[in-house]
Amino acid sequence: MKKKIIVQKFGGSSVANIDRIKEVAKRIASYKRHRQDVAVVVSALGDTTDKLEELAFSIDAHPPEREMDMLMSTGEQISCALLAMAVKKLGFDAVSFTGAQVGIRTDKAHTRARIIKIDAHRIKKAFAEDKIVIVAGFQGVTSDAEITTLGRGGSDLTAVALAKALGAKVCEIYTDVKGIYTTDPRIEKKAKKLTKITFEEMLEMAALGAQVMQTRSIEVAKKYNIPMHVRSSFSKEEGTMIVQKNEKMESVSVRGITCNKSEAKITICNVPDRPGIAARIFTEISKAEVSVDTIVQNVSHTRQTDISFTVPKTELTKTLKTIRNLSEKIKIGDVSSDKDIARVSIVGSGMRSHRGVAAKMFQTLADNKINIEMITTSEISISCIINRKSSDKAVKVLHKKFNLERIN
Amino acid sequence: MKKKIIVQKFGGSSVANIDRIKEVAKRIASYKRHRQDVAVVVSALGDTTDKLEELAFSIDAHPPEREMDMLMSTGEQISCALLAMAVKKLGFDAVSFTGAQVGIRTDKAHTRARIIKIDAHRIKKAFAEDKIVIVAGFQGVTSDAEITTLGRGGSDLTAVALAKALGAKVCEIYTDVKGIYTTDPRIEKKAKKLTKITFEEMLEMAALGAQVMQTRSIEVAKKYNIPMHVRSSFSKEEGTMIVQKNEKMESVSVRGITCNKSEAKITICNVPDRPGIAARIFTEISKAEVSVDTIVQNVSHTRQTDISFTVPKTELTKTLKTIRNLSEKIKIGDVSSDKDIARVSIVGSGMRSHRGVAAKMFQTLADNKINIEMITTSEISISCIINRKSSDKAVKVLHKKFNLERIN
Repeated sequence: MKKKIIVQKFGGSSVANIDRIKEVAKRIASYKRHRQDVAVVVSALGDTTDKLEELAFSIDAHPPEREMDMLMSTGEQISCALLAMAVKKLGFDAVSFTGAQVGIRTDKAHTRARIIKIDAHRIKKAFAEDKIVIVAGFQGVTSDAEITTLGRGGSDLTAVALAKALGAKVCEIYTDVKGIYTTDPRIEKKAKKLTKITFEEMLEMAALGAQVMQTRSIEVAKKYNIPMHVRSSFSKEEGTMIVQKNEKMESVSVRGITCNKSEAKITICNVPDRPGIAARIFTEISKAEVSVDTIVQNVSHTRQTDISFTVPKTELTKTLKTIRNLSEKIKIGDVSSDKDIARVSIVGSGMRSHRGVAAKMFQTLADNKINIEMITTSEISISCIINRKSSDKAVKVLHKKFNLERIN
Repeated sequence: MKKKIIVQKFGGSSVANIDRIKEVAKRIASYKRHRQDVAVVVSALGDTTDKLEELAFSIDAHPPEREMDMLMSTGEQISCALLAMAVKKLGFDAVSFTGAQVGIRTDKAHTRARIIKIDAHRIKKAFAEDKIVIVAGFQGVTSDAEITTLGRGGSDLTAVALAKALGAKVCEIYTDVKGIYTTDPRIEKKAKKLTKITFEEMLEMAALGAQVMQTRSIEVAKKYNIPMHVRSSFSKEEGTMIVQKNEKMESVSVRGITCNKSEAKITICNVPDRPGIAARIFTEISKAEVSVDTIVQNVSHTRQTDISFTVPKTELTKTLKTIRNLSEKIKIGDVSSDKDIARVSIVGSGMRSHRGVAAKMFQTLADNKINIEMITTSEISISCIINRKSSDKAVKVLHKKFNLERIN
């Protein structure tokens, strides 16, 4: 009988110290007892990454990327060796592998490499010898045997790619939260853990500010249709399954509410309303490597218009400087900025087939005297930029109005 | 013109922190400026090894050796990446390599692997690109791509083996002392740094207690006739060359004095003087994995004899227990032990052709009222076991008598 294969990924907080590593080992062993083949992907121990970065930056503020990969990849090598020791200590056979050993082949883009393919034969051989396999996350190797790292969220990506290569039924992502919630439980205590969510919704929520998951791994899981199970490493409780499609969901329009306070709004007044001006402005801003989000330009009734858009707060100064330089070349009016904004979004695949969702959102905010400054919509989300002070209130009233406390 | 290749090895104290790493980088760069190809071997940063071991031992008092190698090899990977960054920061091109990347092939004996061969093509390619090559010491890789470590003194071994593979003219070992001294300068302030010493003498001195070098790397350097230059990483001063042969040395009989306080003496009285009894005793002791050193048994005039021998102090208890067990099977007399001994040795290749050296040593000790408890000799050394209290005095009077303060 072919055994079921599962892939489990444990993040830095799950292996923050030796006691937690021992707990993780017990959990892994419990799966092995159920006669499943287990491949585990592990991040670096708690603060190792920070410590290594600090060493590098004390030598060079911009350390060479190839050497950074040599350095940073040791973090995961340490944690996978320690976890293998802890599992073996419990009487189960285990073996740790670096990304290179396990054949995680990447391109040559150091510090942000992309996985090209995984040669799973070494893991399968270890499975055949009834071993639990523990793989260093976040890292790979080029065709020239150079060590690479995968960038932010890299260990999740390793896990999903391994699940694909091994034909695993599920990829479990162990983290310090219990799953994906209808909204941030720190804002709304009645926030409810979702049993299921689609890849599409999860991507949208992540893009709109939910911080549980990096988007890259979800994109890969979506592409290969590998269900992800996001769950707590501190509890046995089931978490949230991220899946391709969920029939049951169709009846529910809104599945989650996100709130993102990391943006700032810039308004440029009296922009000449001629073709090419907006393009000129945003080309200059993108040259400055600023990622612009929501852009709003109203229909103009004169020869001039106002353009508003949001940028990450950390890039506000740089953006304003770019616009100031530009104002010497094209005629624009006053430029104002506002850091005290928040983006509140409702997300749900069901919106496609449900009319009136937007209207309901706007009316709810209006009823609560919350002024909407900007609006943007995608196929499965609606975002309103509002004053930051009202954002918690907005989340709460929308959560109630869309009945999220009773979702499952 | 073919460039001269040098191999330099920097130990843990030379790269104990970021400031020292920067100093080492400057030194490496200064060699590169002289248009030499430089391959650098580096140990783990100061206390990294201890910290990693501590993590492992907090999981398992006897961690699996394969996983220990995965864990411990990260120490050198970290230091070689950081050193490469520091060299590049000075404007020189550098590249770091793990043992696996640089093709240091070993056998499969984890934690104490032996180097089988080195495939130097990757280093030569980097030299051709005018790069300084920085290699993680202490580690290698098996034919199955398993990471191994070379055991104590492993980084020195990496350096010597690389020097051989690259055809380097010299292997420089940077350490926290200025070279090899006629005796321990902490005991005798007049101890003099030797300009040259033979491999044979160095091996003998290391075996007799000089702690500068591990013997394995010297054995390899001797085998392939690769001169080693032991020198300080904190000074520009020349250190000591370890070479195959030195004509000049022939005229000097004694080159160094060592003092080893780590042994204990055991005496078994009234051992039956029959063939096979001594063999029986030392077979039992070796089964207990105790390494016995000097053994003395006098000619007996009765049917019984006394046997004395030394063991490492750390193995005294175990040895006494073994003898106690044995005393139930064969008839032996009282067993006594003494921890307060020291082995004082004089070493020098010239002893071979100089008569009277032993007599001079014994007479000098006698003149100073130092009682000799045991004596052993090799072709190039004479050791006396004496009371520990007298050992510093013995070193000083012998140092003076053999004129070592005026050697060079």
